[in-house]
Amino acid sequence: MIKDPIQPTDDDARRILRDLLAEMQHAVLAVNPPDSPFPHLSRIALQADDDRTPMALLSGLATHTRVLALNPHAGLLIAAPPAKGDAMTQARLSLQVIAKQLPNTGPEHAARLEIWVGRNPKAKVYATLPDFHFWRMEPQAGLLNAGFGKAYHVTAADLANPPA
Amino acid sequence: MIKDPIQPTDDDARRILRDLLAEMQHAVLAVNPPDSPFPHLSRIALQADDDRTPMALLSGLATHTRVLALNPHAGLLIAAPPAKGDAMTQARLSLQVIAKQLPNTGPEHAARLEIWVGRNPKAKVYATLPDFHFWRMEPQAGLLNAGFGKAYHVTAADLANPPA
Repeated sequence: MIKDPIQPTDDDARRILRDLLAEMQHAVLAVNPPDSPFPHLSRIALQADDDRTPMALLSGLATHTRVLALNPHAGLLIAAPPAKGDAMTQARLSLQVIAKQLPNTGPEHAARLEIWVGRNPKAKVYATLPDFHFWRMEPQAGLLNAGFGKAYHVTAADLANPPA
Repeated sequence: MIKDPIQPTDDDARRILRDLLAEMQHAVLAVNPPDSPFPHLSRIALQADDDRTPMALLSGLATHTRVLALNPHAGLLIAAPPAKGDAMTQARLSLQVIAKQLPNTGPEHAARLEIWVGRNPKAKVYATLPDFHFWRMEPQAGLLNAGFGKAYHVTAADLANPPA
């Protein structure tokens, strides 16, 4: 008999999630163009918003952004920053998200931009270009892989509520 | 007027591709489950085969493998090994692929396994488990992003024929 390899999320898993979200600066995005059977992958800039929702900063010129405007069902793979060692044993979080573009004017945008650039000063050179917008990546479900034999189902609540 | 940001592939791009394929040990895979609008992302072990086709070594128990058996249209994001510096300026290759499972018995499998484990000795502990198979990821089209302002359309021929 084969054991279900996916475990329920516990505090250990929630701590790994908390650290992944706190440190994340980029991720891999998958989108589904309406006219193609192939998912399209790209690396994007991604940081946690105040409420820990993953937030992308995307150029309207990029293929992935044009696809998201047509089909907001997307996937993210969020991993710890590059490190030595075996990439297959490092923690990574696979999320199903609904993407929502936010306006790139107004005080909320300005506040978000300031926090973003504070965490990633190099973003300054493009973040204020008129084709760049923040996109909320609202988690619907997820899978945390923390190495061989350590896989957890992750809910939106697990992401929003870290352990103390 | 907005300039097309994607350039035709040249020898510089083909050299970057050659190095990415030669060094790759893993990648991000996106698959589309037939019963979900969300692409599913995961990190997988990936190496170039003799003819430079990306080849994955996958467990039949993994979600992505079960999805590939139902829908072979997949995406890969292949990046250089972890390095310091800005992840958004490092070269990465986004591929559209058709996945094909290979038999895990016979002399061709044994030869492939020997080469694979030679490049990644840690794979020895799972590579011979009965649920593991090689999957050819046959490239249909691709996009190479070698940093801001350096994006190239990539064909299967560009991948198969590196510059001297």
